[in-house]
Amino acid sequence: MNKDVLRDLSYGVYVISSKKDKRDVGCIANSVIQITSSPITLAISINVDNFTNQAINESKEFVCMILPTDIDNNVIGTFGFKTSAEVDKFEKMDIVEVDGYPILKDAIGYMRCKLIKQVDMNTHTIFIGEVISADKLSTKESMTYAYYHQVKKGKSPAKAPTYIASEEECETSNQKKYVCPICGYVHEGEMPDDFVCPICGAPKKVFKEVS
Amino acid sequence: MNKDVLRDLSYGVYVISSKKDKRDVGCIANSVIQITSSPITLAISINVDNFTNQAINESKEFVCMILPTDIDNNVIGTFGFKTSAEVDKFEKMDIVEVDGYPILKDAIGYMRCKLIKQVDMNTHTIFIGEVISADKLSTKESMTYAYYHQVKKGKSPAKAPTYIASEEECETSNQKKYVCPICGYVHEGEMPDDFVCPICGAPKKVFKEVS
Repeated sequence: MNKDVLRDLSYGVYVISSKKDKRDVGCIANSVIQITSSPITLAISINVDNFTNQAINESKEFVCMILPTDIDNNVIGTFGFKTSAEVDKFEKMDIVEVDGYPILKDAIGYMRCKLIKQVDMNTHTIFIGEVISADKLSTKESMTYAYYHQVKKGKSPAKAPTYIASEEECETSNQKKYVCPICGYVHEGEMPDDFVCPICGAPKKVFKEVS
Repeated sequence: MNKDVLRDLSYGVYVISSKKDKRDVGCIANSVIQITSSPITLAISINVDNFTNQAINESKEFVCMILPTDIDNNVIGTFGFKTSAEVDKFEKMDIVEVDGYPILKDAIGYMRCKLIKQVDMNTHTIFIGEVISADKLSTKESMTYAYYHQVKKGKSPAKAPTYIASEEECETSNQKKYVCPICGYVHEGEMPDDFVCPICGAPKKVFKEVS
């Protein structure tokens, strides 16, 4: 079986948010599809170890925000590679509040959903929601997962359904490599002093040399 | 509620095939996501009125083929806008047989799945399959649904989950318009005698003038 073909499936890049004990939580997801158009329903897949999974389970609501190609790396870094158990991910974000939910001002738009079904898939849960409100905030182009990998040189966190363990092993080069311990981004060659991780914004000093 | 934002979700373009009474059947789908990586599982959404839906229901197997940007329009036209109830969709296709299933030679790759769960969503069924064999056939770029609409000027059939009824009404022009009755493609301006529908390959003579 050649698992590489799974990488050729097309996805977007989304922030999925919910509430846990009245706190706003969220994470990055790429597995989002519309299921029906009347009523409008969405299916999303979230790792059971994600704090956002518990939050959706309890609050029975979630919001899906669509990220554009020019989204600030800090959004990916914060929502994709940190946990809402420890960090208030919305704290430093530019947001607008809609129906009590924080919406990222830089998102292309959002869909607020009421949970109507969920499917246990062991490591992941498929949450199916009915869209109860939705709006478009810009006419920018949606970031695809392929764009994130090719242009932004992004990596997948190990909890993503699309993570392939050998992802980092494909590169060959004689330059020194440094890995960001927060998001897994690998930088090749020397780093200037003001270098920050292009994915999560971590400073040069936290990078570890790859031996 | 602004439904337009639903169009900013990102999808690929796939042929989903299965078997019905030992016959190979299939249709176009864009709602395909990976759910888990161990075992590798996929979720797909198929309209209940699609012949392929019945086939998956009965055979408990399906194959997902990933289409590249340069896929022949005839593949989209045949699999997207005709029904396997009336037509042998694989008859004139260039295929290779794998484990008894026809695989389109022009696909980027395929995943053959054993059905492990299904979720009834009224107009659609979510089929969840475990990938039991998979291979990559080329290194071409995957066609995204956005590319299909923007570059190929493709339309969505009314049975697609992402169909928006007002889709055709956004255009304004003084030129005469002709609609393809098979796939819904709208052509503006005069058509040369050898004109064929760029989406489904239908000849000029079947086009109807839009009043």
